[in-house]
Amino acid sequence: MSRKSKRSLKEKLALKNSLVKEALSEFLGTFILIALGCGCVGQAVLSRGAHGGPMTVSVGFAMAVTIAVYVSGGVSGGHINPAVSLAMCVTGRLKWTKLPIYILAQLLGAFVGAAAVFGIYYDAFMEYSNGNLEVTGPNATAHIFATYPAPYLSLINGFADQVMSTAVLLLAIFAIFDTRNNKVPKGLEPIAIGLLIIALTCSLGMNSGCAMNPARDLGPRLFTAIAGWGMEVFTAGNNWWWVPIVAPMLGGVLGATIYIVFIEIHHSDTQPEEENDVYDKYELTNMDPATHHKRQ
Amino acid sequence: MSRKSKRSLKEKLALKNSLVKEALSEFLGTFILIALGCGCVGQAVLSRGAHGGPMTVSVGFAMAVTIAVYVSGGVSGGHINPAVSLAMCVTGRLKWTKLPIYILAQLLGAFVGAAAVFGIYYDAFMEYSNGNLEVTGPNATAHIFATYPAPYLSLINGFADQVMSTAVLLLAIFAIFDTRNNKVPKGLEPIAIGLLIIALTCSLGMNSGCAMNPARDLGPRLFTAIAGWGMEVFTAGNNWWWVPIVAPMLGGVLGATIYIVFIEIHHSDTQPEEENDVYDKYELTNMDPATHHKRQ
Amino acid sequence: MSRKSKRSLKEKLALKNSLVKEALSEFLGTFILIALGCGCVGQAVLSRGAHGGPMTVSVGFAMAVTIAVYVSGGVSGGHINPAVSLAMCVTGRLKWTKLPIYILAQLLGAFVGAAAVFGIYYDAFMEYSNGNLEVTGPNATAHIFATYPAPYLSLINGFADQVMSTAVLLLAIFAIFDTRNNKVPKGLEPIAIGLLIIALTCSLGMNSGCAMNPARDLGPRLFTAIAGWGMEVFTAGNNWWWVPIVAPMLGGVLGATIYIVFIEIHHSDTQPEEENDVYDKYELTNMDPATHHKRQ
Amino acid sequence: MSRKSKRSLKEKLALKNSLVKEALSEFLGTFILIALGCGCVGQAVLSRGAHGGPMTVSVGFAMAVTIAVYVSGGVSGGHINPAVSLAMCVTGRLKWTKLPIYILAQLLGAFVGAAAVFGIYYDAFMEYSNGNLEVTGPNATAHIFATYPAPYLSLINGFADQVMSTAVLLLAIFAIFDTRNNKVPKGLEPIAIGLLIIALTCSLGMNSGCAMNPARDLGPRLFTAIAGWGMEVFTAGNNWWWVPIVAPMLGGVLGATIYIVFIEIHHSDTQPEEENDVYDKYELTNMDPATHHKRQ
Repeated sequence: MSRKSKRSLKEKLALKNSLVKEALSEFLGTFILIALGCGCVGQAVLSRGAHGGPMTVSVGFAMAVTIAVYVSGGVSGGHINPAVSLAMCVTGRLKWTKLPIYILAQLLGAFVGAAAVFGIYYDAFMEYSNGNLEVTGPNATAHIFATYPAPYLSLINGFADQVMSTAVLLLAIFAIFDTRNNKVPKGLEPIAIGLLIIALTCSLGMNSGCAMNPARDLGPRLFTAIAGWGMEVFTAGNNWWWVPIVAPMLGGVLGATIYIVFIEIHHSDTQPEEENDVYDKYELTNMDPATHHKRQ
Repeated sequence: MSRKSKRSLKEKLALKNSLVKEALSEFLGTFILIALGCGCVGQAVLSRGAHGGPMTVSVGFAMAVTIAVYVSGGVSGGHINPAVSLAMCVTGRLKWTKLPIYILAQLLGAFVGAAAVFGIYYDAFMEYSNGNLEVTGPNATAHIFATYPAPYLSLINGFADQVMSTAVLLLAIFAIFDTRNNKVPKGLEPIAIGLLIIALTCSLGMNSGCAMNPARDLGPRLFTAIAGWGMEVFTAGNNWWWVPIVAPMLGGVLGATIYIVFIEIHHSDTQPEEENDVYDKYELTNMDPATHHKRQ
Repeated sequence: MSRKSKRSLKEKLALKNSLVKEALSEFLGTFILIALGCGCVGQAVLSRGAHGGPMTVSVGFAMAVTIAVYVSGGVSGGHINPAVSLAMCVTGRLKWTKLPIYILAQLLGAFVGAAAVFGIYYDAFMEYSNGNLEVTGPNATAHIFATYPAPYLSLINGFADQVMSTAVLLLAIFAIFDTRNNKVPKGLEPIAIGLLIIALTCSLGMNSGCAMNPARDLGPRLFTAIAGWGMEVFTAGNNWWWVPIVAPMLGGVLGATIYIVFIEIHHSDTQPEEENDVYDKYELTNMDPATHHKRQ
Repeated sequence: MSRKSKRSLKEKLALKNSLVKEALSEFLGTFILIALGCGCVGQAVLSRGAHGGPMTVSVGFAMAVTIAVYVSGGVSGGHINPAVSLAMCVTGRLKWTKLPIYILAQLLGAFVGAAAVFGIYYDAFMEYSNGNLEVTGPNATAHIFATYPAPYLSLINGFADQVMSTAVLLLAIFAIFDTRNNKVPKGLEPIAIGLLIIALTCSLGMNSGCAMNPARDLGPRLFTAIAGWGMEVFTAGNNWWWVPIVAPMLGGVLGATIYIVFIEIHHSDTQPEEENDVYDKYELTNMDPATHHKRQ
């Protein structure tokens, strides 16, 4: 193919409409999030611990988030999560008109990502439980896709769990991107977000798997309902399914609001230079002024 | 809400007083440190190892520190630790008048963070020990919040342990922020601090859990005393409670002093450029001068 | 040796032909990839889990990739993988005439790397199975070098597994290097690639070890065939050996194509500045224009 | 203390002699390396696996290296290893006259670091083996400090192991600092070195613990000889002690030489810009020239 024909093919395919671009980006990002993230859970469960455990699931899922944000960050902001998109709308960082498209693309990406995990591990699923796709019990595999509450967990505690973990998620994301706080350098935000996911899944993962993302939970749950696990995926855990949808939406807005009220609104607009000079406090007050200039 | 009304709401809420801002920042940072950090210990203990172990606690707690410093770094320096704040005062990096407010905010944040862990894992706590909140024994859960000495540990060895680990903590923090040493690039210091915490908790965590932070220890301990574990949290371990308060304060100042005496005071003021040119030693002495210019 | 003589020795050895340089670079990079990467598998297998497990293999192998890319990135692009080189050719990033040399250098590097692992662990191999070098069974060691399918895996599922994992690998590599997406800062791409490998090996490693690289698989397999494991390394797993050669080549091109179709071709050429301004969406729309200028 | 008096105290203490500065820096760096690094081994051994295992030792030790290089990198280059210093001398990056001082400071730092580990874990040592400090057997603790060969390992295989692992170490360090390769950004080299240590310890750690550093091995070994383990620390493992001294010195020079011969001497001096333009190969050859300018 000559350069010229490639160029014109590119021109034909290129989308001028930014919303469609963004939808494609969110779709692809969320697909990768679920294909790799739920893949980590699948590897640990289906190998009965031989090829994975709490650490591979936590770190692997976190790195799946990092990669998904690298893929979709530049075009659509790399939300890959309706709770993030909603918080962005509420705080004026995303147009409300875009919200439904973002959420739809995320849900679709998560659904297809779940299908990919099922496809890639199809033989393993068949081997694991002789073809029985079970939601509960010792051979359960539904929790590879969607989250389910621990046996001890009440609905109200589970709801609070999802509100709080998503609140911390958004609060920290707002800090990571706040140019007047100690912002992560451009191009490394996805890695910082991955480290954040490690902290959250190691600390708040025990109650119900730390979904913190309605698309990450509903998309794969819908897939399992269709693919053979049946409607029990919705009734299990005292009809748990709506909690990781509603609670993260609330929690995300709550966390964003807490960050803004505790930190962001207090940045002084008039002296941004001083404000921006993070960690001056770490330096000697009697330092030579000359030395100050050499700082990067 | 229109942009205008949002703006004016912001103006009303914004704090002009920098000390109050900093207190809010330290409160929020320490809250996140404890909510996620002690959450990691809780997940490992309450799941009896099924959802966590030494590695998730070490890495998860470290990443909790990273996130906490990202949240509070730009406004208050991200101390989230009275031992850090004291060392900053002693070395002239923080005004002494601010110290009490910093410490109070940190203690309060840690207390509320501990309450969050208890709340989020309330059902798990009840399940774990049938509602008995025990400080010692096989079903002990108090060490999810505050640190306790290993059975073999004497008070003097435990005191030395806390002095030394906090000394290394501060020594390394001073190196990480020293612009005339090989400073971590701006915006990545919190990640370097997280890696430091991994090293410290993997190496010096066995004696008494590597508190290195009076607020991290006393705040949650006060919470457990009130929340149902009782006054045994103070008497356990031969009245251990005061060690992770006093020893880190001494250790922090010691570590900062060691860094200054061994490294910082020897930076030559007159030739800062050469001094700053870290790792010249790694380059060929007979290298073309032209090549030197192309270095970033 | 005087500086002068060293200089002239350098001039004699220096290669003016860029293709030979690049071949040396790919050889050395792939050697390190296999020496350290397969070394991680060796350590876990030969110590029967005492010195390694899923986590050390995943993280250790990933860091081996990172180091290999640091060593070879600046001269030859750090492909260390024929599937990467092919995708680069197909998308116009590498000249087709270079492809055979790249692949040959990679294969040779992988072969020598496998020999290094065998040499360094020679005593351990002898101890492990009394000198029997077995391809299958409880004392199998061939899978330290090349990949083999899990017992449950059909050829078609295994083929799909390798297509998909390599597709995600290339898709993510294209994102990591896309200057109009949220590109990883120069000099840190190898670390991002390492994190990507962690995600892939934790999620898609269970079926057949996640080779995703024909050189990584065939080079060591050839070595084992010669070194004493015999031709069973080719017949085992229903003649598995060709799958991790053919499937990654297809998958890599597929992944690169998906990235280009979903993301790259939609970057608007006319407004590159705006396009480049990643994460504007995260910032308040009513932010002061003045503040915008201060962003890094 | 007034600012003025602090200033004059500083002037009195500041060392004008750069060699003494560098010795202090290497001493402190190697102290931290051993105090934290051997501390990780101690925690895993003394807790009989309850508070550590292969992963905490590998990652913890690696992060100890990272922190040690941050502390000593800016003043003395952060060698903390005679094998590194020797390779720097041989390749013209360090003056030969400085070598003895560097090595002495490193040895001393390692000796004191080992003493710190023994002191901090004194009660744990006494508890572990009822006060018996043993070099071999099930209650051995000498390998917390120095390295010992696995039972199966012959001297010649062990020697090759140490040559190869140190060769890869130096080869990779040279790549990480090569400004004409894909150099790690300034201030992040210590983290890349830490990741390198993870790869090396996960892959080449099983034979004899991956010392790769004569000071790291001899310093603590001398300490154990004096502190109560006795002269068996030198005779154990068929007089193993000299291997991790001699082999790394050879291996380091070998690795540096391989890097120079395979990569460094081929950098074209005349077209450094093009050479420096790492990863151009990843970009479309038909890309707009305009786009090129916008790259960072």
